[in-house]
Amino acid sequence: MDYRIEKDTMGEVQVPVNAYYGAQTQRSVDNFKIAQDINRMPKEIIRAFAYLKKAAAITNFEAGVLPEEKCKLIGQVCDEILEGKLDDYFPLVVWQTGSGTQSNMNVNEVVAYRGHVLNGGSLTDKEKFLHPNDDVNKSQSSNDTFPTAMHIAAYKILLEVTIPGIEKLRNTLAEKSKAFMHVVKIGRTHFMDATPLTLGQEFSGYVSQLDHGLKAIKNTLKHLSELALGGTAVGTGINTPKGYSENVAKHIAALTGLPFVTAENKFEALAAHDAIVEAHGALKTVAVSLMKIANDIRMLSSGPRSGIGEIFIPDNEPGSSIMPGKVNPTQCEALTMIAAQVLGNDVAINIGGATGHFELNVFKPVMIYNFLHSARLIGDGCVSFNDKCAVGIEPIEANIKKHVDNSLMLVTALNTKIGYYKAAEIAQKAHKEGTTLKEMAVKLGYVTPEEFDAWVIPADMVGELK
Amino acid sequence: MDYRIEKDTMGEVQVPVNAYYGAQTQRSVDNFKIAQDINRMPKEIIRAFAYLKKAAAITNFEAGVLPEEKCKLIGQVCDEILEGKLDDYFPLVVWQTGSGTQSNMNVNEVVAYRGHVLNGGSLTDKEKFLHPNDDVNKSQSSNDTFPTAMHIAAYKILLEVTIPGIEKLRNTLAEKSKAFMHVVKIGRTHFMDATPLTLGQEFSGYVSQLDHGLKAIKNTLKHLSELALGGTAVGTGINTPKGYSENVAKHIAALTGLPFVTAENKFEALAAHDAIVEAHGALKTVAVSLMKIANDIRMLSSGPRSGIGEIFIPDNEPGSSIMPGKVNPTQCEALTMIAAQVLGNDVAINIGGATGHFELNVFKPVMIYNFLHSARLIGDGCVSFNDKCAVGIEPIEANIKKHVDNSLMLVTALNTKIGYYKAAEIAQKAHKEGTTLKEMAVKLGYVTPEEFDAWVIPADMVGELK
Amino acid sequence: MDYRIEKDTMGEVQVPVNAYYGAQTQRSVDNFKIAQDINRMPKEIIRAFAYLKKAAAITNFEAGVLPEEKCKLIGQVCDEILEGKLDDYFPLVVWQTGSGTQSNMNVNEVVAYRGHVLNGGSLTDKEKFLHPNDDVNKSQSSNDTFPTAMHIAAYKILLEVTIPGIEKLRNTLAEKSKAFMHVVKIGRTHFMDATPLTLGQEFSGYVSQLDHGLKAIKNTLKHLSELALGGTAVGTGINTPKGYSENVAKHIAALTGLPFVTAENKFEALAAHDAIVEAHGALKTVAVSLMKIANDIRMLSSGPRSGIGEIFIPDNEPGSSIMPGKVNPTQCEALTMIAAQVLGNDVAINIGGATGHFELNVFKPVMIYNFLHSARLIGDGCVSFNDKCAVGIEPIEANIKKHVDNSLMLVTALNTKIGYYKAAEIAQKAHKEGTTLKEMAVKLGYVTPEEFDAWVIPADMVGELK
Amino acid sequence: MDYRIEKDTMGEVQVPVNAYYGAQTQRSVDNFKIAQDINRMPKEIIRAFAYLKKAAAITNFEAGVLPEEKCKLIGQVCDEILEGKLDDYFPLVVWQTGSGTQSNMNVNEVVAYRGHVLNGGSLTDKEKFLHPNDDVNKSQSSNDTFPTAMHIAAYKILLEVTIPGIEKLRNTLAEKSKAFMHVVKIGRTHFMDATPLTLGQEFSGYVSQLDHGLKAIKNTLKHLSELALGGTAVGTGINTPKGYSENVAKHIAALTGLPFVTAENKFEALAAHDAIVEAHGALKTVAVSLMKIANDIRMLSSGPRSGIGEIFIPDNEPGSSIMPGKVNPTQCEALTMIAAQVLGNDVAINIGGATGHFELNVFKPVMIYNFLHSARLIGDGCVSFNDKCAVGIEPIEANIKKHVDNSLMLVTALNTKIGYYKAAEIAQKAHKEGTTLKEMAVKLGYVTPEEFDAWVIPADMVGELK
Repeated sequence: MDYRIEKDTMGEVQVPVNAYYGAQTQRSVDNFKIAQDINRMPKEIIRAFAYLKKAAAITNFEAGVLPEEKCKLIGQVCDEILEGKLDDYFPLVVWQTGSGTQSNMNVNEVVAYRGHVLNGGSLTDKEKFLHPNDDVNKSQSSNDTFPTAMHIAAYKILLEVTIPGIEKLRNTLAEKSKAFMHVVKIGRTHFMDATPLTLGQEFSGYVSQLDHGLKAIKNTLKHLSELALGGTAVGTGINTPKGYSENVAKHIAALTGLPFVTAENKFEALAAHDAIVEAHGALKTVAVSLMKIANDIRMLSSGPRSGIGEIFIPDNEPGSSIMPGKVNPTQCEALTMIAAQVLGNDVAINIGGATGHFELNVFKPVMIYNFLHSARLIGDGCVSFNDKCAVGIEPIEANIKKHVDNSLMLVTALNTKIGYYKAAEIAQKAHKEGTTLKEMAVKLGYVTPEEFDAWVIPADMVGELK
Repeated sequence: MDYRIEKDTMGEVQVPVNAYYGAQTQRSVDNFKIAQDINRMPKEIIRAFAYLKKAAAITNFEAGVLPEEKCKLIGQVCDEILEGKLDDYFPLVVWQTGSGTQSNMNVNEVVAYRGHVLNGGSLTDKEKFLHPNDDVNKSQSSNDTFPTAMHIAAYKILLEVTIPGIEKLRNTLAEKSKAFMHVVKIGRTHFMDATPLTLGQEFSGYVSQLDHGLKAIKNTLKHLSELALGGTAVGTGINTPKGYSENVAKHIAALTGLPFVTAENKFEALAAHDAIVEAHGALKTVAVSLMKIANDIRMLSSGPRSGIGEIFIPDNEPGSSIMPGKVNPTQCEALTMIAAQVLGNDVAINIGGATGHFELNVFKPVMIYNFLHSARLIGDGCVSFNDKCAVGIEPIEANIKKHVDNSLMLVTALNTKIGYYKAAEIAQKAHKEGTTLKEMAVKLGYVTPEEFDAWVIPADMVGELK
Repeated sequence: MDYRIEKDTMGEVQVPVNAYYGAQTQRSVDNFKIAQDINRMPKEIIRAFAYLKKAAAITNFEAGVLPEEKCKLIGQVCDEILEGKLDDYFPLVVWQTGSGTQSNMNVNEVVAYRGHVLNGGSLTDKEKFLHPNDDVNKSQSSNDTFPTAMHIAAYKILLEVTIPGIEKLRNTLAEKSKAFMHVVKIGRTHFMDATPLTLGQEFSGYVSQLDHGLKAIKNTLKHLSELALGGTAVGTGINTPKGYSENVAKHIAALTGLPFVTAENKFEALAAHDAIVEAHGALKTVAVSLMKIANDIRMLSSGPRSGIGEIFIPDNEPGSSIMPGKVNPTQCEALTMIAAQVLGNDVAINIGGATGHFELNVFKPVMIYNFLHSARLIGDGCVSFNDKCAVGIEPIEANIKKHVDNSLMLVTALNTKIGYYKAAEIAQKAHKEGTTLKEMAVKLGYVTPEEFDAWVIPADMVGELK
Repeated sequence: MDYRIEKDTMGEVQVPVNAYYGAQTQRSVDNFKIAQDINRMPKEIIRAFAYLKKAAAITNFEAGVLPEEKCKLIGQVCDEILEGKLDDYFPLVVWQTGSGTQSNMNVNEVVAYRGHVLNGGSLTDKEKFLHPNDDVNKSQSSNDTFPTAMHIAAYKILLEVTIPGIEKLRNTLAEKSKAFMHVVKIGRTHFMDATPLTLGQEFSGYVSQLDHGLKAIKNTLKHLSELALGGTAVGTGINTPKGYSENVAKHIAALTGLPFVTAENKFEALAAHDAIVEAHGALKTVAVSLMKIANDIRMLSSGPRSGIGEIFIPDNEPGSSIMPGKVNPTQCEALTMIAAQVLGNDVAINIGGATGHFELNVFKPVMIYNFLHSARLIGDGCVSFNDKCAVGIEPIEANIKKHVDNSLMLVTALNTKIGYYKAAEIAQKAHKEGTTLKEMAVKLGYVTPEEFDAWVIPADMVGELK
């Protein structure tokens, strides 16, 4: 490969001749050869940086500390980054300095060098029109830009991927709940037969879980909307013009269309990322819900002949490389694996969040990497599960009817008539002797056949249907 | 020990002759010999059951399905439970059936048997005035009572122990922040010297963390306020009188003085405990904050001679059994151990929450055990840390001044005057040659001594003080 | 309560008049009011301290630095501690200093004061015959005694509770595996019907899991056998007589009957507890196994009429407070809750282990508390599950036969005869049209009835039976 | 894009015209649109499949069930896969079916189709020379191939990346320990000054941690060496020729050069992945060690002027985008972030491992994804930390000397001369009055100046140096 020489405050570095980045990016590539093929800094962070660099340039221009020409040029490159045109020039990995300084400098360099070229310059010019530190990073520090990018990226992905994904699944389940509201089926507690409910009621529980999960996520957005930018090195805002924090937050809000505000306390905003910990706490709650829902659905669809078999789910692919004709609940499996991943990611985030010290938390990249991973997995996973599984769920009425008719737990309806003890005796003896409840109830002389038929009606045992 | 014989639907059981419980409690004692000396069902759950059994009795009486005399008697025993008079009769452990059925039956039995005795009966009477199932458990199932007790216990402990504990510490830290607002000190990022801030600013970050943590906890109370009671066996409300759910929630709210309401969806309320998962997600966020705060404080107080030594914390006890005169940051250690525990408890809760199936989650006891543990540890831990450490924190001004005066990072103030590169050169050379910044800045010819003194003033580098 | 006055290097303290402890224990009681009713330092640690204090006294005596009379007296009190006679005098909680110094001093004080009384003295004597620091703690520091107590307690509980518990369950499952080796049943993969195996084969998988788990635990014993004692304050062994480390380890080995040795590197032994982290890694592996086994067993026993119902498990108690006659897999539930707890404890231990600094890890109490909790839960849980569930497992042959006869996956036997694609066609069409495999195979013209009968024999599809 | 039509048992699918895969791979691409840009099935798994497909073909050929020509062709394509030539044709993600069936079929299809082309055929030929199921997958199931690939990939990466990485760092630290063995420095416990040790002793603790960690990893290799292959669909080995399991394991051992054997119990090998859980338990132990080591090193190097500053670590890059001349412990940060990630991955693996059911664990992809991630991060991370940080560590003797000379804990040397209490008085008063120990000791009249000089010698307090 051909190289050119770039310099930073520590000396000279060889950089690929056409790369729109400089010495510091290259140093990081050379110094952190850790999982470089699989763990690049997430593109959501790079895009978030583009918003904030553009907003900072505008704010600096308005404050009179950056010439208009430079401001425009910075904004132009940021737009290119947002369009994905410069993706190749962000080669750094998550496993770098814990402040994300090198990714901030990577962005500064790309903006400066690409801007210089857009301005008619050449990458080999000794002096560039834009300086990575003095212009692009003006009024900023990695210490406030990286956490700002974290919040922008986190907020955006929740709004654009996670929440819509969950809502899509929630809405399908709500439709199914309504459609199945009168399908009376056996209940199961402890995996054991219990009193009946309707399939729609069962699904309404899933909907309620996701509704609460959505609320939980939304409750955490407020903290995520607070931006560190303006705190600079340690939270004091050194080297920023007057009014900078508030103004730059307004510009970010305008550029993203999201309700960002400047964090009231910048010391927290740099030194701790509790907003990420808290918001991921909501994501892990949703993961817990999804595990439950997907487990239920795969068990309800189990069989086809020796399982529960009460619902049908779509056949999307041959299920087995050896067992011909087998169909498996593969979407449930993907979703439950995602839930396991999110619960693991949560621990990585907790440890990162707990291990900040003094004025700076230096687990920033690992925290946002796990956060974005979870947010995406839940969003994508819900859509996949929705489109390829949930929309096609149908009751298998024959099996449902068979199970409810056989159930010994219908005896519960007799509690208020003959008391718990006699009811128990009926159920136990019917189970032991393999009879129906009615046969045993009558045989024991506790009820007449007419009373049994009048009192034990599955459809009357499911309460009010909404 | 002397025994009497008790019976349930499965047959006879020997019970300690004076125990106010019956066959089912005893079966559980015999069947679950697991950590019986250390893991009894938390007393908060037993007390929560007392509220709900009393409320259920009143609601049943008002609905005309329980005689007034029985209602009063049930209420009377519940009051005794709340006063702690019957603690000895709740011997069951956490590691029982996952629905908590046995603890529900334990309460039913204690209420029935103690009530019978209060009513003038004897424990050896064959027939008792109150029946555990038909009277005390009327209109209830373990499946809705245990999750109701979980929410009552969780809500109460958050309000009575956790939140007040955090607030106490938060307020002390806020006072300290104010008191230390003008103490200019060196900042530290990456454990390395950085630009200055004030000690009060540093502490304001802790306050902001706890303020956000308190908000996070409070955001989860709404979900916890929803009660499962009225769902009975599988969420349909079988065997409950009309209006029962709403009414019993009102009575619980009245008895506890807390804003409980009936859960809109009972199927979720039995089958999932996302409210516990979500609320513990807030607790783990606070644990993360506390780990950060306690770590900072012990490192800031480190020394006395070979550490950072910028703050004094109280000496509470001899610190070492071998090193005479040693004093250690023991309250910080207790608090960070608590944080580790809470982060572990979080995982146990997540797994429990994710592993419910069909109409019932059967990880209820392990979930609430861990929740109450965390809630108590955080509450007690904050109070202990507050009373024995935080209130006594004072700056050690001599060390603080020495550190700030020596700092090379004051050079940052020159960025806007001479640019980042020249400023870096000054700092690097001063470091290398062991000089002061000023000496090197002047030697390199970048500033005059007068300019240096005018531009590099630590107290001017800390921004606006609030 | 009546008090007497005790003194330590920081001054006077009021101590309960008859308590066999002194100022430092009391200070800890007063300073750490955190979950005092539920989180006392585990008694296994107190007992482990008794072994080590006795061994240290003997070693000191043999080295000529402790008079024989004092040595004997120390040993005598240690024996009383081991007999549980002095349990009331160890009131401290887990949430104390992270080095466990206060529990070490608690032991030192109890040994000194009780020894003084045994020697004819009175608790109110100003001078006592034994000094907590200079005699009982001689040649020791909390920093090496507490981790030594951790290893003694951990090793002992694994050998006495955990391993025997797992082995008991393993042996029962092995017997069941043998007994059920010829019971051909349907296999299930992805919760879906698969090719057949025998119930004994299925159980052999559980046995193999536990065998591997036992090996995993035993692999970690070597690291646990290394004792920190002799490292004293920071690992250098300051204030110990020559040969002390090796000798005291030998005495501990002799007293406990376990193969303890002195740790080759004392700096690790104080500053890190990777042995605990590693050994708990084995415990969590077993927890994972137990979760799988208990889940399988409760699902195989599900029903009785609308589940899988292929095995019977014992009915131990009435299962429901509302559904009469219900029986639930309660031992499976206790065991799976235990597994969840152990997986949570693992995280607390990991965080504690990762957060030691310089010469000392100060998460010792929380680490050993969680370790002992897990070790006990697994041991007790396996015994309970074994005695009350596993021993009574029996196949329900009728259901097993019905499931295997219905299975469409028997078609797999045709792969090698007619190819995967035609076999798939048979299964898919039989499923769609609700026919038997044989009917469809013949109808499609791929095999003759005779061929089908000759080729598709469930008992021939289960491989060699061992 | 141009397409061709491919068929499987479920019907027709459009496949990119030149893709060496067929209908089932394409279905998975279409059905699992989940994080497709970041979470491809790890290439280590694809390579492991190449070994096993080749070994299976040879074994099948030797057993007379596969013609030599097909065997050779299969081997030829597998070699191409191992050379990385066919990477583009493995587009599937981790979030697919939990058995990894689709990745198994992806391999089957690539081998069949590429083999067909190598054999002179065309991708659009209706009949291909090799059949994905009947030839490439012969005597196999996804259920036994995927876990076999998991073990091959896990074993290989541990041996090739993880262990060498840890050993490299271990050896550097051992050299440093030796080089620094006589540098007497202050010890620190609880972050507080303690008795002295040498820098070499401190580093020897790190070496001992890594030595134990390496042993822990090696202890788990045995379980990983057991291969599931031969179990086929449910562990019974249906559709395999006689001797297949043993023979195929031998061929895999020969091809990989690693000591693989056939698993004694195939039911465990399909239904549980405790070997992965156990081995990752060792990896998390190493992560815990690395967190401790990296934390120590960054704190020991903290400063340069207001921290501890006892060691120098290499300056690799400018540390701050705003603070000129700042240098940060970036390699420590990458390593501690890695540790956090591994501890999170551990939880994902535990949950996956615990949630298998009946004859198959269907969390296979998520488990191996996390395992390989951790194994790589630790290996790469140790090398990076070694090369860019550890090799350059040097003591900063001036600071070390200053700290040890100031230390009040040198008083511990007086314990055996004047008793713990008087020694404590000296230290406390010296601290309070800001004097040296010697001044205070003499002033209090407990020792003469000569005695002090004779008794309190830091270099004599560090024990024997090895």
